[in-house]
Amino acid sequence: MDIINIICDKKDRKALTKEQIHFFIKGYVDKKIQDYQASALLMAITINGMNSEETAFLTEEMRVSGDVWDLSDIPGLKVDKHSTGGVGDKVSLILGPMIASCGAKLAKMSGRGLGHTGGTLDKMESIPGMKINLTKEEFKKQVNDIGLAIIGQDSHINPADKKLYALRDVTGTVQSIPLIASSIMSKKLASGADCILLDVKCGKGAFMKTYEDAKKLAIEMVNIGKKLNKNVKAEITDMNQPLGKAVGNNLEIKEVIETLKGNGPKDLIEICLSSGSILLQQAKIFDDRKEGRKALEENIKNGKAFEKFKQFVEAQGGDVEYIDHPEKFPISKNLIKILSEKEGYIKTIDALCIGLSSCHLGGGRMTMDDIIDMSAGIYLNKKVGDYAKKGELLCTLHTNKDNVEYIVEKVKQAFLFQDEPIKESDIFKGGLIE
Amino acid sequence: MDIINIICDKKDRKALTKEQIHFFIKGYVDKKIQDYQASALLMAITINGMNSEETAFLTEEMRVSGDVWDLSDIPGLKVDKHSTGGVGDKVSLILGPMIASCGAKLAKMSGRGLGHTGGTLDKMESIPGMKINLTKEEFKKQVNDIGLAIIGQDSHINPADKKLYALRDVTGTVQSIPLIASSIMSKKLASGADCILLDVKCGKGAFMKTYEDAKKLAIEMVNIGKKLNKNVKAEITDMNQPLGKAVGNNLEIKEVIETLKGNGPKDLIEICLSSGSILLQQAKIFDDRKEGRKALEENIKNGKAFEKFKQFVEAQGGDVEYIDHPEKFPISKNLIKILSEKEGYIKTIDALCIGLSSCHLGGGRMTMDDIIDMSAGIYLNKKVGDYAKKGELLCTLHTNKDNVEYIVEKVKQAFLFQDEPIKESDIFKGGLIE
Repeated sequence: MDIINIICDKKDRKALTKEQIHFFIKGYVDKKIQDYQASALLMAITINGMNSEETAFLTEEMRVSGDVWDLSDIPGLKVDKHSTGGVGDKVSLILGPMIASCGAKLAKMSGRGLGHTGGTLDKMESIPGMKINLTKEEFKKQVNDIGLAIIGQDSHINPADKKLYALRDVTGTVQSIPLIASSIMSKKLASGADCILLDVKCGKGAFMKTYEDAKKLAIEMVNIGKKLNKNVKAEITDMNQPLGKAVGNNLEIKEVIETLKGNGPKDLIEICLSSGSILLQQAKIFDDRKEGRKALEENIKNGKAFEKFKQFVEAQGGDVEYIDHPEKFPISKNLIKILSEKEGYIKTIDALCIGLSSCHLGGGRMTMDDIIDMSAGIYLNKKVGDYAKKGELLCTLHTNKDNVEYIVEKVKQAFLFQDEPIKESDIFKGGLIE
Repeated sequence: MDIINIICDKKDRKALTKEQIHFFIKGYVDKKIQDYQASALLMAITINGMNSEETAFLTEEMRVSGDVWDLSDIPGLKVDKHSTGGVGDKVSLILGPMIASCGAKLAKMSGRGLGHTGGTLDKMESIPGMKINLTKEEFKKQVNDIGLAIIGQDSHINPADKKLYALRDVTGTVQSIPLIASSIMSKKLASGADCILLDVKCGKGAFMKTYEDAKKLAIEMVNIGKKLNKNVKAEITDMNQPLGKAVGNNLEIKEVIETLKGNGPKDLIEICLSSGSILLQQAKIFDDRKEGRKALEENIKNGKAFEKFKQFVEAQGGDVEYIDHPEKFPISKNLIKILSEKEGYIKTIDALCIGLSSCHLGGGRMTMDDIIDMSAGIYLNKKVGDYAKKGELLCTLHTNKDNVEYIVEKVKQAFLFQDEPIKESDIFKGGLIE
């Protein structure tokens, strides 16, 4: 077998065999295949695509390119959840305690933020003391003991994905559904959970801008699950406006606390209940999603979900004082209020613009070497559908930087208004692929 | 400007601008753009193509990526000729003296053989003493004095093509008409001739297997000439069987000598007369191709073309004794006669098989480091259309190697027979693009 023939086959729109894909992934990880050959093949895949079978082969070869974690000695079904990333997406940190409080076991490896999207690990690190690296044994013990652990991806898992991801980033081959699907799924499958729920974000602030693309990606990932005998479901959810009201690391942790206490923004609590009821069904705790949803609502009301969050923070070394007294979190020195210059119903809040602006205020990183200001970000006082009078507060920028007038201007432009009330039917509904 | 955007534009089937192509070529030669980025772009071009304008921009940027030779101080129009390569193609070495003997000036940089195709430089080097490297001044003086010089490509010409060609070879991006066209044309245009005749080989032993592909390449190259204001014409000629009867370096030089003396195989002399009459018209020596053809035929008969060849060999340091006494050329120790095992009209002689077999007998190289045995090769005693009786000589293998039975078997299979005579209309006619 020869890499040039493999590249030519894909260039000529042929389906690659399992053996060819194995040869490529193994050769690339072993440095027998060069970056310039891998990038030519990645471009041929990006343009000519891959069928579901090829995508599953690719996923499986990437999955076994490094360590694979075995969680089978933890009793019960272990669940995992993955979001393709967005603005204000703190769902895992709410959903995890919610389902764990109902008896599910969430075993999750998570990522960091880059560009306009935030990352769960960064948000966790805004809680003083919180560890994001556990050994496999610590991780498994915690999942078993409290039903919930979220850590960074172990460095020995999936070296193929690490190399390919870095290469795709600099060769124009990021936007490829089979490559995105296999990258996500090979990581998820290597970390050992029995059931996986994928949250495919869709809209301006998401990787997938259109519903059609989001659906294609969701279907592709669910198909990989089918071919590799894993229980995988995928939701498509809205990322046209930021999720919830808080964008920025400790601002979002404070919103996590509020939501677990029952005071969360409507869109955020809704996605947690909807995803949670699917996960409880996947974990076979409730046959019926409605019953699962009821249990989740109950555990918000009775405080069990919030208690589970505190248990989780404590187990990973975080200072629970901050969870009980969120006023202890540092606050940025500059709080800039953005007041409405118009009057009307808010039609859209550009999630991409809000995400990038939060990043520029210090709340995110443009390169992996940037250091995040945990207190920086944007708090939305209005959401899509709300009515705003002239002079009413739209949002507040939190930053330790000075001279951020250009960001103020950008954020103002993120809000669009209309005279008529927003119709329920105009709000993106998403869907479930199973 | 940013290489990733350029790659994405081509991935998305957009036409690249002159500025984008300049950024790519300059950045790649200056090592600011990495091989893995160049190969991703080359793959996007290979799959999505380039329009004529982009191809011309690419050609021009490659042309000026290194030294450009100026031949304008040599009086008259300088012509150049390029073949896309085939088996037994010794045309330049016959055609050059033929047209120079009629007053044209051929200024040609040539290449080496690889795989099944031979190279003019290798054939020249089978003449003892023959130099293939001349300085620019020596080259120009020789073109001016005797009307003919053929040398290897100067190492400072077109560094972009050298890098891209090597990269394409290992990344499955060889088969792309805009990339092939720009590679050929940028080299030709950098070496300074006023008129260029391209011989696009078509068939089993050629790079372009089908007439459609050959025509596309020919049109693309002629279009580049139009856009860059050069007189460029392209012939499409047959490479379904080897050209002439000799395949292998000094075997071909002996055939060159025979042909210049008027005893050449029909197909070989025909292509020399046809290409020669076009070149004489391009050089404005004859307005009419028929007159040019008559002059060329005349100079074969009266010995002027042969004398010009001797002048050329002498000017580049070759030992003319070998030209006057071709029996001085070394002969391989093993001459293996292949006799016909069938009876009938020869329908095809697989040029690819003959070319590769000659290479394996020692007459070519599979990698650029291999050393060529100048006496090795294959001499065809029959050509397509000839009748062969059982036991009649089909061809002779020349080799210094032993144990070549597997090659004997392959060569036997290269000959296919039929009972009926070959119709004139079944012989590939080719065409001229101008």
